[in-house]
Amino acid sequence: MKLSSKMERCGLSPMRKFNGEAAKAVERGLKIYHLNIVQPDILTPPAYFEALREHAQPVLAYSPSGGLPVLLDAVRKYYAHIGAELSRAEILPTNGGSEALQMAMASILDDGDEIVIPEPFYPNYHTSVTLAGASIRPLTTCPEEGYRYAVRERVEACINERTRAILITNPGNPTGAVLKPEELKLMLDIAKEHGLFIICDEVYREFVYAGEPLISALQFEGYEDNVIVIDSVSKRFSACGARIGMLISRNKAFMGAAMKWCQCRLAVSTMDQIASAALYDLDEHYFDATRAEYKRRRDTLLGKLRQIPGVVCEEPKGAFYVMAALPVDDADAFQHWLLNEFDDNGDTVMFACGEPFYATPGKGKNEVRMAYVLKEEDLSRAMDILAVAIERYNKR
Amino acid sequence: MKLSSKMERCGLSPMRKFNGEAAKAVERGLKIYHLNIVQPDILTPPAYFEALREHAQPVLAYSPSGGLPVLLDAVRKYYAHIGAELSRAEILPTNGGSEALQMAMASILDDGDEIVIPEPFYPNYHTSVTLAGASIRPLTTCPEEGYRYAVRERVEACINERTRAILITNPGNPTGAVLKPEELKLMLDIAKEHGLFIICDEVYREFVYAGEPLISALQFEGYEDNVIVIDSVSKRFSACGARIGMLISRNKAFMGAAMKWCQCRLAVSTMDQIASAALYDLDEHYFDATRAEYKRRRDTLLGKLRQIPGVVCEEPKGAFYVMAALPVDDADAFQHWLLNEFDDNGDTVMFACGEPFYATPGKGKNEVRMAYVLKEEDLSRAMDILAVAIERYNKR
Repeated sequence: MKLSSKMERCGLSPMRKFNGEAAKAVERGLKIYHLNIVQPDILTPPAYFEALREHAQPVLAYSPSGGLPVLLDAVRKYYAHIGAELSRAEILPTNGGSEALQMAMASILDDGDEIVIPEPFYPNYHTSVTLAGASIRPLTTCPEEGYRYAVRERVEACINERTRAILITNPGNPTGAVLKPEELKLMLDIAKEHGLFIICDEVYREFVYAGEPLISALQFEGYEDNVIVIDSVSKRFSACGARIGMLISRNKAFMGAAMKWCQCRLAVSTMDQIASAALYDLDEHYFDATRAEYKRRRDTLLGKLRQIPGVVCEEPKGAFYVMAALPVDDADAFQHWLLNEFDDNGDTVMFACGEPFYATPGKGKNEVRMAYVLKEEDLSRAMDILAVAIERYNKR
Repeated sequence: MKLSSKMERCGLSPMRKFNGEAAKAVERGLKIYHLNIVQPDILTPPAYFEALREHAQPVLAYSPSGGLPVLLDAVRKYYAHIGAELSRAEILPTNGGSEALQMAMASILDDGDEIVIPEPFYPNYHTSVTLAGASIRPLTTCPEEGYRYAVRERVEACINERTRAILITNPGNPTGAVLKPEELKLMLDIAKEHGLFIICDEVYREFVYAGEPLISALQFEGYEDNVIVIDSVSKRFSACGARIGMLISRNKAFMGAAMKWCQCRLAVSTMDQIASAALYDLDEHYFDATRAEYKRRRDTLLGKLRQIPGVVCEEPKGAFYVMAALPVDDADAFQHWLLNEFDDNGDTVMFACGEPFYATPGKGKNEVRMAYVLKEEDLSRAMDILAVAIERYNKR
């Protein structure tokens, strides 16, 4: 029986593509260093679990479709602290940042519409855009330029009469690129001048390593109709399993459209909303230790990665990924070889292959994304394995 | 700025349409008996909250996109008990039954496709179908016939070359109609003969009041490619706030398409999955008391409702709704009058107006859906108010 042609144009997660081969490798006794996964090992703040334990309502009722007031107010307080005043009606709690993306795409995109996204980008954007009937117009960036994209002529060259929105990820996944305030303002200006929405995926906001103040597109005045922010507790509080994200906008018509989706799916988890609200009550310095830990991990990974001959990568300024071009012809073939024909003292390594992060066919073939969510010693060992592997692979 | 034309064709929840007027009525001192809402007052089993309290993992990690094994196995055990053997791969936990519906529609429907749904139907179906680019072909039923639809000629008259699926709700929301086993088999046969999916929304499975055994389309052999079941813990365990539903099918290609959606939104709430699994460990007689309570409520409501002159309604066999035709010209105007110009000793009543439950324009204008989720004495009082109101309304 026929399935949706839109769904058929979507793919499975590239981060999980080699899971079958990996399982077999483990069965053969191989140890794999997983740089492909994005599950942080940072402890979830105990306040989350304490809020669950202290809950005393005997009926687990639906929460309002627009979210529980206790969470809305916690999020408002957080944003007020970084200089963005929001009303409750400007925030919609979602089933993770992922649902906020689905809602945004479904609310603004029509069949045949285009959305400009700098590539490489988070591959799940493709599914949300495709299911809305639209397509991605890639704004191509490259490792040699540190994946920078905030250049007026280059952005405007991607805009045409079918363009409805621009989507930026700041800090960037997979690139780790962080926009300077004037670069973010330029992107907002371009969106406003062309009458476009600008979706700002800011779920990695706290993960910046050069002492930058926390930045959000919501801090800029004059772009109320254009700006849509995607946020989440997942990475900020190492609470990925909570599935609490947010869709935030001051555009009333847009929020009205998004509310139709909210009412269609009735509500977000009541307990996860209550417990997530407690996370926002943490001391404002809570994140300092996490940031310092990730910075050390980044420096460890990058220090060794850059010593491998032929590797091209810029220092990522944010998030917890490094995108790098490797001196191999095809990262997919290399990953296959790493899992099936290679080991270094019984060890090998996995990363996310670069091609699915691009919309332009053929791009990213020799690139990989590595997440630095492992302990320093494991990242160090993984880079040693990668160096040995590249040398041996190219001598086959 | 332009919004999605598909989203613009969707509506807000008809159950919440009069909430603004209701708030003002309450401010004026009116007491409202809410037959429009669907939040049961039955206590959530303590096992749910105990599972949350006992959780001891310090990192709240993503669960697999395909669901936590502990929940999958709990659901498998439940279905095995009612005669349907399922593998883990045939079950996908979802963010409530609502997301399972969204996933099903997005996986099988294309622009211009049609899905046959007996009307009146749960209005949120319209949003899921419309966002997938398709439209509802209504199979019209009427209160005088107890909203029955399982008649071959009538179903087949709705099928054409654009039809991709049939959606049935069993037990029915809003009608309370329950298919006999031979009627369900007829619907499955029609779907199979015409090469259609048949989506069976069975979230009210336990709510049957004539001693019927629990029925699921999954119990019938030979329809593995056609049947898609929507299920949920919300109503079964009075755990609406848990947002744990399930999409179940033995059609591998369909489940592969649905998995793309699952990976795009990464995962379902980890804690809600763990706690919901504990619900399935309850004694199999857990539901008996709940069922008896709802049966009493139905009988109380119906006994009084049928005494009101001019009301047309059949006894609902399942779920916790009564759909009824009232002797008024327009239920919307009547509801407006009830909130703004009427009271009986300071009391009034709310219901869900019937029109949004129909796809055929003009249908359902004098019908209303009433949920019997209140205590018997409140339902009784609400019916007394309704009787007085109808009499006074028609004498204006």
